[in-house]
Amino acid sequence: KAGRRRKDSLRLSGHRHACHAMIFASCPDKVFGKIPVRYAVLMQMRFDGRLGFPGGFVDSRDGFLEAGLNRELSEELGLQPGLLCLTEREHVLAHVLPLHRDRPVVAHFYMRELSLMQLRDVERAALRACEYGAEVMGMVRVPLYTLRDGVSGLPAFLCNSFAGTAREQLLWALAARRLLPPGRLREACEIARVPVPALAL
Amino acid sequence: KAGRRRKDSLRLSGHRHACHAMIFASCPDKVFGKIPVRYAVLMQMRFDGRLGFPGGFVDSRDGFLEAGLNRELSEELGLQPGLLCLTEREHVLAHVLPLHRDRPVVAHFYMRELSLMQLRDVERAALRACEYGAEVMGMVRVPLYTLRDGVSGLPAFLCNSFAGTAREQLLWALAARRLLPPGRLREACEIARVPVPALAL
Repeated sequence: KAGRRRKDSLRLSGHRHACHAMIFASCPDKVFGKIPVRYAVLMQMRFDGRLGFPGGFVDSRDGFLEAGLNRELSEELGLQPGLLCLTEREHVLAHVLPLHRDRPVVAHFYMRELSLMQLRDVERAALRACEYGAEVMGMVRVPLYTLRDGVSGLPAFLCNSFAGTAREQLLWALAARRLLPPGRLREACEIARVPVPALAL
Repeated sequence: KAGRRRKDSLRLSGHRHACHAMIFASCPDKVFGKIPVRYAVLMQMRFDGRLGFPGGFVDSRDGFLEAGLNRELSEELGLQPGLLCLTEREHVLAHVLPLHRDRPVVAHFYMRELSLMQLRDVERAALRACEYGAEVMGMVRVPLYTLRDGVSGLPAFLCNSFAGTAREQLLWALAARRLLPPGRLREACEIARVPVPALAL
C-alpha cells in the first residue's frame, strides 16, 4: 500500500517532495518510577521555533527520495554512515500539501524502529551534527502518556508549535503502529483540541 | 537588588520554593550561514510536554535554596560535580506565584553564562542524566532571531507550551541581559501575542 502511494506520488508533475522520518524505540523507563514511557519517539526543535521530524525537501528528479532523505538525516543528525539508512521499505505515507512557494508539495513520511541503545546513539550523534545549534536546536522525545491532571503529557505536547504537517504525521504514526491504545490517543487529541487521526476513530 | 529579593522571599512563611536556572553561552553560529544565532540559551522539554528551565521545587527550611537547585541540576542534567555549581550570586529574580496545591510558591530564577564549550558539555551530560527519557525529554536551544517571514524563530518558539512561569522568566532574562535588542524582543512578543516584559518597554 505504502509502496503504491510512493510510486503514484512520484508520477505527479511539478511537485516538490519533502521526506521526513520518525525514529522510535521501545523504552522500559517510567516517569517518577510509575508511569510507563512505552516508546521513545524522536522529534526535533527546529531553527524556526517549531517541532518537526528530521528531514526536509529533496530533489526527486532521479526518483530516489531516500537518497535525499538520508543526506538530510546525516546533516541534521550527524550520523555515521551505516548507523541509519532508510529505504523504500520504511516509506509509510505520502500526501499532497497546499502550495508552498507556488508549487504543490508531496510530504513523504518514513518510520524506523531502532533498539533503545541505537536511538541513544542517534541522540548523541545529533549533538555533533554540523547543523546542531543552527538548523537543529535540539532533539526531544515525545511524551506518550497522559498524567493524572488529564492534560500534562501528550495533550500538552500536542499544543506546542509544529512545522508543516508534523503533528498530523506524528498522530498518524502513533495510531498506525499502535504506539498507544486508540482510545487514549483519541482522548489526548480531544483534550488538545486537535483533529483525531482517522485510524484512531 | 537580587540578593535583597532572595532574602525577603525566604522570610515568607508557609511558601514553597522553586528554583530554576537559565544556562546560556555566546554563540558564533549562523542559521543557513546568514542569520546570527547570537546566544545558545538552554531550555528542556519536560515530562509534561511543556518547555521549562532545569530545576524544581526545593526544600528551603535550611535557607539553602542553591543546595536544592544544584541537586535538581545534577539529577536533570547529569552534571559531574564541579562542572556547574550555582550560588547566591547567580540569583536574579524571585516572585510569588498563585497557590500550588494549597500553598503559595516563590519562583526563584538563576542565570549562568558559560563558554560555548562548557554549554556543549552540559548538553552532552544531559543525555546521560538519570532522569533523561523520563522526567527530562530533551534539551533545546531557544532561537533568538526572527526570520524573514516575521514569525519563524523566536515568535513561533514563544507559541509553544511552557511550564509555570518559564516563558515569563525567559523573556525577563532576555531583556535584563540584553541578549537581543529591546525593540526586537518587543516585536517578537507582539507577534506571538504574549505580554512584553516590562524591561523591554
